[in-house]
Amino acid sequence: MPTDPAAAAPDGAAFDVGLLAPVAAGTADELADARFADALVTAEAALVRAWGAAGVAPAETVSAVSAALGWRAAGEPCAPGELPIGRLVSEAVGGGNPVIPLVAVLKERVAEPHRRWVHRGATSQDVLDTALMLLAKRSATALLADLRDTAERLAEFARAHRDEPAAARTLTQHAVPTTVGARAAGWLRGVRRAADGLERIAAELPAQLAGAGGTLASFASIGGDAAPALPARFAAELGLAAPEGPWHTVRWPVTELGDALVRATDALGVVAADVATLSRTEVGELAEGAGGGSSAMPQKRNPARSVLIRSAAIRAPHLAATLHAAAALAVDERPDGAWHAEWPALRELLRTARGAAARAVELVSGLRVDPAAVQRNLHLTGGLIVAERLSIELAPRIGADRLREIVAAAGAGGDLAELLRAEPALAGIDIDAILDPAGYTGLAARIVDAALAEGARADPDVTAADPDPDPRTEEPA
Amino acid sequence: MPTDPAAAAPDGAAFDVGLLAPVAAGTADELADARFADALVTAEAALVRAWGAAGVAPAETVSAVSAALGWRAAGEPCAPGELPIGRLVSEAVGGGNPVIPLVAVLKERVAEPHRRWVHRGATSQDVLDTALMLLAKRSATALLADLRDTAERLAEFARAHRDEPAAARTLTQHAVPTTVGARAAGWLRGVRRAADGLERIAAELPAQLAGAGGTLASFASIGGDAAPALPARFAAELGLAAPEGPWHTVRWPVTELGDALVRATDALGVVAADVATLSRTEVGELAEGAGGGSSAMPQKRNPARSVLIRSAAIRAPHLAATLHAAAALAVDERPDGAWHAEWPALRELLRTARGAAARAVELVSGLRVDPAAVQRNLHLTGGLIVAERLSIELAPRIGADRLREIVAAAGAGGDLAELLRAEPALAGIDIDAILDPAGYTGLAARIVDAALAEGARADPDVTAADPDPDPRTEEPA
Amino acid sequence: MPTDPAAAAPDGAAFDVGLLAPVAAGTADELADARFADALVTAEAALVRAWGAAGVAPAETVSAVSAALGWRAAGEPCAPGELPIGRLVSEAVGGGNPVIPLVAVLKERVAEPHRRWVHRGATSQDVLDTALMLLAKRSATALLADLRDTAERLAEFARAHRDEPAAARTLTQHAVPTTVGARAAGWLRGVRRAADGLERIAAELPAQLAGAGGTLASFASIGGDAAPALPARFAAELGLAAPEGPWHTVRWPVTELGDALVRATDALGVVAADVATLSRTEVGELAEGAGGGSSAMPQKRNPARSVLIRSAAIRAPHLAATLHAAAALAVDERPDGAWHAEWPALRELLRTARGAAARAVELVSGLRVDPAAVQRNLHLTGGLIVAERLSIELAPRIGADRLREIVAAAGAGGDLAELLRAEPALAGIDIDAILDPAGYTGLAARIVDAALAEGARADPDVTAADPDPDPRTEEPA
Amino acid sequence: MPTDPAAAAPDGAAFDVGLLAPVAAGTADELADARFADALVTAEAALVRAWGAAGVAPAETVSAVSAALGWRAAGEPCAPGELPIGRLVSEAVGGGNPVIPLVAVLKERVAEPHRRWVHRGATSQDVLDTALMLLAKRSATALLADLRDTAERLAEFARAHRDEPAAARTLTQHAVPTTVGARAAGWLRGVRRAADGLERIAAELPAQLAGAGGTLASFASIGGDAAPALPARFAAELGLAAPEGPWHTVRWPVTELGDALVRATDALGVVAADVATLSRTEVGELAEGAGGGSSAMPQKRNPARSVLIRSAAIRAPHLAATLHAAAALAVDERPDGAWHAEWPALRELLRTARGAAARAVELVSGLRVDPAAVQRNLHLTGGLIVAERLSIELAPRIGADRLREIVAAAGAGGDLAELLRAEPALAGIDIDAILDPAGYTGLAARIVDAALAEGARADPDVTAADPDPDPRTEEPA
Repeated sequence: MPTDPAAAAPDGAAFDVGLLAPVAAGTADELADARFADALVTAEAALVRAWGAAGVAPAETVSAVSAALGWRAAGEPCAPGELPIGRLVSEAVGGGNPVIPLVAVLKERVAEPHRRWVHRGATSQDVLDTALMLLAKRSATALLADLRDTAERLAEFARAHRDEPAAARTLTQHAVPTTVGARAAGWLRGVRRAADGLERIAAELPAQLAGAGGTLASFASIGGDAAPALPARFAAELGLAAPEGPWHTVRWPVTELGDALVRATDALGVVAADVATLSRTEVGELAEGAGGGSSAMPQKRNPARSVLIRSAAIRAPHLAATLHAAAALAVDERPDGAWHAEWPALRELLRTARGAAARAVELVSGLRVDPAAVQRNLHLTGGLIVAERLSIELAPRIGADRLREIVAAAGAGGDLAELLRAEPALAGIDIDAILDPAGYTGLAARIVDAALAEGARADPDVTAADPDPDPRTEEPA
Repeated sequence: MPTDPAAAAPDGAAFDVGLLAPVAAGTADELADARFADALVTAEAALVRAWGAAGVAPAETVSAVSAALGWRAAGEPCAPGELPIGRLVSEAVGGGNPVIPLVAVLKERVAEPHRRWVHRGATSQDVLDTALMLLAKRSATALLADLRDTAERLAEFARAHRDEPAAARTLTQHAVPTTVGARAAGWLRGVRRAADGLERIAAELPAQLAGAGGTLASFASIGGDAAPALPARFAAELGLAAPEGPWHTVRWPVTELGDALVRATDALGVVAADVATLSRTEVGELAEGAGGGSSAMPQKRNPARSVLIRSAAIRAPHLAATLHAAAALAVDERPDGAWHAEWPALRELLRTARGAAARAVELVSGLRVDPAAVQRNLHLTGGLIVAERLSIELAPRIGADRLREIVAAAGAGGDLAELLRAEPALAGIDIDAILDPAGYTGLAARIVDAALAEGARADPDVTAADPDPDPRTEEPA
Repeated sequence: MPTDPAAAAPDGAAFDVGLLAPVAAGTADELADARFADALVTAEAALVRAWGAAGVAPAETVSAVSAALGWRAAGEPCAPGELPIGRLVSEAVGGGNPVIPLVAVLKERVAEPHRRWVHRGATSQDVLDTALMLLAKRSATALLADLRDTAERLAEFARAHRDEPAAARTLTQHAVPTTVGARAAGWLRGVRRAADGLERIAAELPAQLAGAGGTLASFASIGGDAAPALPARFAAELGLAAPEGPWHTVRWPVTELGDALVRATDALGVVAADVATLSRTEVGELAEGAGGGSSAMPQKRNPARSVLIRSAAIRAPHLAATLHAAAALAVDERPDGAWHAEWPALRELLRTARGAAARAVELVSGLRVDPAAVQRNLHLTGGLIVAERLSIELAPRIGADRLREIVAAAGAGGDLAELLRAEPALAGIDIDAILDPAGYTGLAARIVDAALAEGARADPDVTAADPDPDPRTEEPA
Repeated sequence: MPTDPAAAAPDGAAFDVGLLAPVAAGTADELADARFADALVTAEAALVRAWGAAGVAPAETVSAVSAALGWRAAGEPCAPGELPIGRLVSEAVGGGNPVIPLVAVLKERVAEPHRRWVHRGATSQDVLDTALMLLAKRSATALLADLRDTAERLAEFARAHRDEPAAARTLTQHAVPTTVGARAAGWLRGVRRAADGLERIAAELPAQLAGAGGTLASFASIGGDAAPALPARFAAELGLAAPEGPWHTVRWPVTELGDALVRATDALGVVAADVATLSRTEVGELAEGAGGGSSAMPQKRNPARSVLIRSAAIRAPHLAATLHAAAALAVDERPDGAWHAEWPALRELLRTARGAAARAVELVSGLRVDPAAVQRNLHLTGGLIVAERLSIELAPRIGADRLREIVAAAGAGGDLAELLRAEPALAGIDIDAILDPAGYTGLAARIVDAALAEGARADPDVTAADPDPDPRTEEPA
């Protein structure tokens, strides 16, 4: 039975049920306050279990506390039943955190002689940091699955559009041709890199157990020789990494996680920025599968997923920066405010990234290309999109100055093909062929293949479509 | 009857009931999602009422819609009863915001022939922006009261400790004497400036009503000549300022509010930083009225309010920056993500500042000075705290070099008074008097009086303790 | 003779001559380190002059120091000649700021018996804060002129294109018509609001003069009754506002200036975002007067000013947030790092905003509309851009459901005009007229007029083109 | 011969020679604009050399261009002689970046027929991104050395003070004992983790070479089969990593570097925060070797390095966030402002972190402990600092309630030892021993040893002082 947020009086009404965060709709429950409360309880239960595993707490105590706190299994959150969250919130003001009142609540649930084993030796930061990591690990795992799913679908999309030429744009202007697939290969590499980084740090997220001053003195006083291994036992109960040491003020677990999360929204933000741009009414090359409606304009097909992902990508850097600002101010053996600033920022960053990835799966699943629009845009400049090619291939014949004149004349409205055909020095050149954007996509196909192959190498479950090595690193013939 | 957050399925459990935001405990209800939903409904009701006031919508329609939507009075939020917030959240994904599904819900509540007047002519941004301003105005008003309350108590504190000498510290080191009151006068001026700025922008917060493209075309099509005045009528129903024009992408109402909020947390953050520092075990000059407890250390008296206020002050700059980042990206007639990024950031910033101010009232109300600790610290450097005075007043007699030698000798453990008394050139000087920190507090008392008088001038209800003009601006004799 | 940055050894090579900040090209000199050094000297000179004006320092001392330090006139920066800036930089490490070594340098320049009046009574923060304000005021004044210039040109642009219909876009999609002028009116209101705010704070920027602990004790010890008025005399020499009190740790002068600057880049960022978007190859409605070239693609016309302004708008929120972060940590009577964090952030923010405004003047001066592209885009949806109008005006005749079917059919490729003409219930309706986007621009013209009139009211030098009151506030007939 | 920044007209005076950034004094040259210009030239030279290595450019061309551009050796920056940096700055406005005018300058230096090989096939982003990476790698390498140096000295410090008991503080209050060494072990782990991360990303920093649209089409057109391997050849000339693919809009090289840099300032910020706090006049446990002076107060010993490091730590999160904000907006094949926002932010972040590390080496080198102050503070609470121990060890004998009474009585001024001795149930207990803080430091010594051993394992050059495994992971007996 989950805890009941409706019991959260006197802070009464839930502050946030998601109404201002549509990007995270449907994904937020795993990060809810009630789940955080469960995680706090889980940390408390794991501590008693670690004492038991160390042979210090009696087996009956372990059983009694595990039952009272709703222990389920190693690596699973407790199901503690209804907790008086509202009371925890209001009583958190006095001590600065909700663990102190929670411990009182949990002790009420545990009968003597087991009661004294609740929170035994721990400081509130041990429990709160550990619970944050539990919440983070669970959420990061779900987020990672969505990133991997997004990457897989992007790979399919890139493969499907590997050879479809399209306009490349720089500083908003058509530059040269690329392919739809090469663009998607960039998205893929970005998302995959972000996923790899998140996977790495998620596996490193440690439990915290070091006592009031970070010396484990209380644990040593209670458990003697059992103390040194207690943090690792505690972590094992929770499915977290054993801490390399106390991290009450060594906050890399928080900042590295935050950095990985904002890198995920960065990568998804690029996808969304491109989709939103290429969905513009005038561009029309891409469309989200299910365009969003409008309250006033029935004809609109808004790229709603892209819009929501972008909102996440705009916010996330500031949330991650908050974590760094706090980490850099982690004074003393427990900071006087910097620690407290982390909690809501980290949780909101998890939610934001989590939501962005959920929306990205939807976005990429339904992403549609309008080949006619792609073609139309590609020819919008009347061949000027291959002006670079002309510089390279024709300037040696007619001179760079002459070529510039022709390009300028075409830019002013002239017909580029005719202008080129009129050049005596270009007689014999297949002008149509040289102006064909499809003939000037360079290594776009190899870039796609390399991105696909890279994923295949990283993931043994995927069979590489193309066994060629990365064209970046192979030796030329 | 308030809306029921427990009905918020399918996003089910409330994401946030305050467990990670103890700084805002007891204050957050006014900013809850349920209150935001009420504000959205209030905006919809006000629109129909504005149409009625303009003579366009029939009086019966105004009555029917007002009743169905729970209208109470101008400037008051509607009491719409239970809303299916969970459904609004999940359906917000499709269109990017919750207004579209809300309109459907509200239309179900209004019978024909009145139904079509719901949301008539409006675009979802009109309603959402207006609701944000309603929420903001209500919260800013409560916050402002707490800032004014804090300022008043700081004024009392400054007056009470106007002449109590204390060590001034620069770069963590004792520098020269100041007074407890002069330090508090600085806090007071900071908080008052922030309050003045917040009051100004709170009064300017405008309603939004400009239609899909910001031209009011729909309103003109429906209401003809009534359209130009409709936004002002709409604003009047809501107690908001009439907009100077559409601000769909002219976002100063959001950023200026955000700036005012972060300035409030800046000013409160300084108070909290000083109180936390001066509460240190070794310093002990100040103590919060009710020190926070500890789960492990029964003897501790934590400056918990200061700690929580500091956590808010660390977070707020990043939230305000998010609003600027969004404002600067407000492209087109409605932005593709930047707008959506504002909502959660602005609301969280309101909550953060609101909570900091609530904690500040508690902090300042109970703030206690330990005069013995203040005196002890003041003399900790054995008179070196007035070394600057010695440079000014004694160096002309014994030379700057000789004085430096004496100060250095005292810094190395010598007795400064004895060293000075041993100087022949200082015979006749009252060494005890010149070393008395209380004799070197400069204009500290005038600085206190000026800060108090400034408040008195600003607030006619307060009688100035000292009628003297600001010493900064008076002419010397 | 200006100070010579080439003398800046041992830090040798200038760190920054603008190569990474093209947005600020041509504008940065006024904010250069050499100018900051001049401002430091100016503050020192003004202090001696204030002592003189107060009748405390002898007239000969005032003359001697003024001459030695290159004093020119009240409100003007000193011309101190070459300063050993490199030495100041390296010696700043020891004390944390460059004022301490600068005072030594300046004392070398002043002969006895005047020497002791240099820096007399001041603390390094007095001088450094004052110099920052001098630099800021000078730069803000130039920036303000560019903002006003930008606003004036935007007003001309809005007036010229007041009645030119164009597509309004929301969430990247064509929504309803607007006008080129109405869009520009929004830009204008944004820039003007930012300028007004900057003008207000620039006039309030205060001098700092409060001595080591913020009590003016040194000034009182030296000058007795002359001390209270000394800060105002000091400010008057510098053309700065007299401080309401010490602001060593009451940092609103820095944060309010920072907020005003980022609001300027926000407003300019919106102009740039719209210009960049509307300059896209596929859109083509706008073009910067002189499009930027490309190293590889001779045909490109990049919106280079917009791009550079956008780069400023992306950076500025983070710089302003740094100022808040520092302000909120302003502990003690001089902070242990927070103060030092302000200097480079404020200066870089000034440069960034200053550059953005300089580029904006260029951008707006040359901004060109392609009326054919505007028209082409307006009709791109085959009339669906007025779907909202059809909902309002035709749905009452044929029913909302039927209208939705027609719109859907048109969205799927049907001819909207033909579909509507085929409706028996719409016989007699002028379908061409109702589908004409120019007929559905609502109050766009009034919005332009109001924005222009607002500027006219604010600026007595401008004659209002339209005496009509703001349509938002007038009463309907 | 290095380029001459004094030639930087018309932007004339160097904007920044370090006067506002004392944290970075003495370290900034490697990041100066002139060095960035050199790096741009180096990238251009390397491109020609890569063409040569690929057998496409003639050997004479490689020689001629290498000589003209001042090529020195692979992995070394070119020495191009004086460059007209001022011209590059002002001409950068037109195209948005300085590469375009630089190419013109360089072509002037190279005679025909070699000239056309300058910048051959490249786009300006290839050159600029690569130059940023060159600058970053050089600076990161120097920074890394300082971080390693800092870590090594922290290890020595931790070892030296391994067993020196000291007060641990939480939320500013004495909590329980720790040791000076255990605190330093936390600093060490933080700095080492940051260094490891920086080392990893520094090795991955890639060259950029993908052409105008990211397809390498120009390279393929020019070099045919040589194109795929060209980026790797280019990178090899520069000592950078071969790119996995084009990263024009896949910005992890920038953001991951930024994250690593801010983590370094985070870790150094914690050291500085602790040193500043423990250097407070009332605390006095630590002192920087050479305390900073004051312009007004000759007796002061400011923790100037700590203050400057803190200023860096406050700024850095905002600079890193700027990089993420830009990365997430990297639209199209080259972004319209987001790219340009990165350059100054990344460079300033490098400088800030670099300076913080340089100051940290100085700080840690001279860090002194005052053992008397440490002891005095440890006993400041009259034994209450071991109240937790009493709860654990004595409460079982006298009851938790009775113990709380005793602690409260001691907190109110009673003598804790006498109060305990007066308890009949504690007869036989060695009260002095149990109240001795040195007896309640838990695993502090093991924590130090583990941190030292961890470094020893990581660095084969260091012989571990203590072969014991990490106490966190060993099994209990």
